[in-house]
Amino acid sequence: MKKLASYVSGSWVEGAGAARPLHNPATEEVLAETSTKGVDFAGALSHARTRGGPALRGLTFAERGELLQAMAGAIHDAREELIALAVANGGNTRGDAKFDIDGASATLAAYAGIGRELGSAKVLIDGEPVQVGRTARYQGIHIRVPRQGVAVHVNAFNFPAWGLGEKAACAILAGMPVVSKPATATALVTHRIVELVIERKLLPEGALSIVTGGAGDLLTHLGPQDVLAFTGSSQTARTLRALDNVIARSVPVNIEADSLNAAVLGPDVAPGSEAWQLFCADVVRDMTQKTGQKCTAIRRVFVPAGRMDEVAEALSERLATVVVGDPAAKGVGMGPVSTADQLRDVRQGIERLAAQTQAVFGADGEVTPTAVPAGKGWFVGPVLRRAADARAATAVHEHEVFGPVSTLLPYDDSAADAAALVALGEGGLVASAYTDDRDFARDIVLGLAPWNGRVYLGSEKMAAQSMGPGTVLATLLHGGPGRAGGGEELGGLRGMELYQQRTAVQGDKGLLKGLTE
Amino acid sequence: MKKLASYVSGSWVEGAGAARPLHNPATEEVLAETSTKGVDFAGALSHARTRGGPALRGLTFAERGELLQAMAGAIHDAREELIALAVANGGNTRGDAKFDIDGASATLAAYAGIGRELGSAKVLIDGEPVQVGRTARYQGIHIRVPRQGVAVHVNAFNFPAWGLGEKAACAILAGMPVVSKPATATALVTHRIVELVIERKLLPEGALSIVTGGAGDLLTHLGPQDVLAFTGSSQTARTLRALDNVIARSVPVNIEADSLNAAVLGPDVAPGSEAWQLFCADVVRDMTQKTGQKCTAIRRVFVPAGRMDEVAEALSERLATVVVGDPAAKGVGMGPVSTADQLRDVRQGIERLAAQTQAVFGADGEVTPTAVPAGKGWFVGPVLRRAADARAATAVHEHEVFGPVSTLLPYDDSAADAAALVALGEGGLVASAYTDDRDFARDIVLGLAPWNGRVYLGSEKMAAQSMGPGTVLATLLHGGPGRAGGGEELGGLRGMELYQQRTAVQGDKGLLKGLTE
Repeated sequence: MKKLASYVSGSWVEGAGAARPLHNPATEEVLAETSTKGVDFAGALSHARTRGGPALRGLTFAERGELLQAMAGAIHDAREELIALAVANGGNTRGDAKFDIDGASATLAAYAGIGRELGSAKVLIDGEPVQVGRTARYQGIHIRVPRQGVAVHVNAFNFPAWGLGEKAACAILAGMPVVSKPATATALVTHRIVELVIERKLLPEGALSIVTGGAGDLLTHLGPQDVLAFTGSSQTARTLRALDNVIARSVPVNIEADSLNAAVLGPDVAPGSEAWQLFCADVVRDMTQKTGQKCTAIRRVFVPAGRMDEVAEALSERLATVVVGDPAAKGVGMGPVSTADQLRDVRQGIERLAAQTQAVFGADGEVTPTAVPAGKGWFVGPVLRRAADARAATAVHEHEVFGPVSTLLPYDDSAADAAALVALGEGGLVASAYTDDRDFARDIVLGLAPWNGRVYLGSEKMAAQSMGPGTVLATLLHGGPGRAGGGEELGGLRGMELYQQRTAVQGDKGLLKGLTE
Repeated sequence: MKKLASYVSGSWVEGAGAARPLHNPATEEVLAETSTKGVDFAGALSHARTRGGPALRGLTFAERGELLQAMAGAIHDAREELIALAVANGGNTRGDAKFDIDGASATLAAYAGIGRELGSAKVLIDGEPVQVGRTARYQGIHIRVPRQGVAVHVNAFNFPAWGLGEKAACAILAGMPVVSKPATATALVTHRIVELVIERKLLPEGALSIVTGGAGDLLTHLGPQDVLAFTGSSQTARTLRALDNVIARSVPVNIEADSLNAAVLGPDVAPGSEAWQLFCADVVRDMTQKTGQKCTAIRRVFVPAGRMDEVAEALSERLATVVVGDPAAKGVGMGPVSTADQLRDVRQGIERLAAQTQAVFGADGEVTPTAVPAGKGWFVGPVLRRAADARAATAVHEHEVFGPVSTLLPYDDSAADAAALVALGEGGLVASAYTDDRDFARDIVLGLAPWNGRVYLGSEKMAAQSMGPGTVLATLLHGGPGRAGGGEELGGLRGMELYQQRTAVQGDKGLLKGLTE
């Protein structure tokens, strides 16, 4: 049995005691096991702070960018190996796996590019200088400097490559060492990437560690210069946020949690039009890509009341072509969910939705998967539901079913009604609106913006080059208010803010000038 | 007996039951009393959200700026009345009172100016557009829009005017209604300002409410679009941060809490030089202004080991000239602390410091105040201590004594040693460094920056126009990491970030252009 170790304090350490298995979710075969029992987490954080931190802070942005470029290169070089691991351990189709793995290398490369642009600086200047005295001699500026602790990244099971890469890119470019903790169930991909980075000595010692397995008391050792970034369930997020040391020592916490992402079909969009096709393609992609296990997937589809039947029919036709089965088999378009627990949660979620909605496609998600031993695997088929009254279907706005499940909800053709309905989700990562109408576009974007970290406007003119609302880009913010956790990741330079202290400096203009020379 | 009411849900409401007294801390005379028992706090928040929010969001930045200018004008018009209230209820000297009250009107006026500059916009554009597709047609932008809830401001007893003004300026300009809760003990000034604003109808109904007295269950009703900003003790901050709804609904919380602000005398600064004089003046001002009850006051003074005696002597000479007594009396330079509880805390703090330090001036703070009935008033004299070993004097780095108390600590002449010692405070609002040496200035600023929200560089060339590190400016960030709470207030446009949702919007360039037209 392959045993996964953690890389902490400069060496690979296997935990003691009973190990947790990692499965192939299509066959239930055990692929590896891991434990972190006995790992010295306080020591691991201290090593990152005292070795990795100073090493990264000693580098310019351009030099840190080169580190990220090297990581991107290592992932790209091992692409086929990583895809195979993702198919086996994640239930990913090849397309799903590429989405995750190429997403990781693309994000690292994007931040490498930002590093090149920032060049030989080590300190970022924030905004313009201001005069703070009677004369221009006495000035104030704002600078951003790396926090002097460690960034702990607790990632979700659905993006083992991208989750590592997108968070590490921002932290390392900002000058902070990273301790990454992938979800245990799908850790093979993350573990292999970190192995490559360590084997090839791509980063200074202490700049990247990995905790493969339970986090133990790791988070209780976080202090005032450390940072915690978490992606996962809102329930776990609450526990992390409420940790005594996190509260008492003002540890910055970035949360990316549940989100009932919405799509709004504009009243101007006629069946068969470009925007209509884009809308249908985006909804179906979001339902089925990674078996709906995307934090950005569309869960609620708001449709002008008069178009509900047409939308139901168009989406059902497309969903009917999706082949569910072992993603290693040819022709399979959607794999299993990643764990037995996920399957149980998805089934419970469908039941909860079913009590307030009507079936459109896939009923309760029962499916006979292709190329899978009978009775094996954690499979659920695509499920589309509909509600007659969007406000009455409260579960649809409260319960994120983290699988290939979505619900159609009617609205009254006005942007105000659609925005108010989206707001019932209490804060999301992304909302999309499909329209070619300038006025509706403005009204719906301004209506959606307070409640969503990203708004995607689908229209005829960009349809040919869109990757859909579910794709997170390095240049645009990822995160959302309320239920979505209130965090902000990525967005170019913005993604580094979490890892930097912004400090005002006031003094004689000449002395201030000397700071960055 | 004057009874203070709360202004909530569009009317003045007196609480039922036993009222809490507000005192004159110099004479212990009761000036007024207040209660909030029975006040409908859930209704108050709802009123602000549904009446005040839409009214403010309907205005342009320039129009919101005009509201702030009117508030600034009202405070300025009532300046003498407010000063008298601050002297009576806050233990303020006339100078202390002006610092608070003029600070409020200046900050409101500064944000009014920002409003004028932003003009007819209602939405802020954050950064440059980015291309997100193959062609320039498909773009991403970031916008900042007002959060659609209410901003609750819980303020500290020491700045009843400025605390209201600086927080309200940022929230109202951003487009959010405010419910302000001043500290009960010194609420007379805040209460009078809100009375003026309401009487004169300077703001749209629902844009400003005041809770005069206990907060009851106010904070338990905060939701995902609301904001909480708190200034006060780290102990209370912990309680607020840990509230179930605040954690579960990702309510943004800005904390400005304890801070062991440091001053560092550069090794190049010779006794008698301009920078030396500035240093001495700043330390003494920070110790005695508002009787040391300033969150930005200098608590730890780091001195090159060889200069400890000279600094002790120079500061003692200046402190000896400070007359302590009833601030209403002529010639008095320092009043009492604001409450009996504060006096008890300060006395306990001095005791704790005394166990690890030696007396330089004022011993334990016993003082016979001028123009005060015998045995009355909550007085403590200026206390300067010194430690032989800066690292051994652990209490000095951990315990903020919120009164006219400071400690001299030696360092080894290197910026690295000074910065490491400052960091023992685990995060502060402001640190100051006095030097005319370009290299020392750079090293100390970059060493202090990760641990402090603001760094003040005192030097010969700006000495004549400096107001010292204790003065918070509207244009520079106020807040600090770790023990200081991890918050950010003010800093011009930056001060509005807490009250805005930053949202990425991606779509066809033409449609995006329509958003802000």
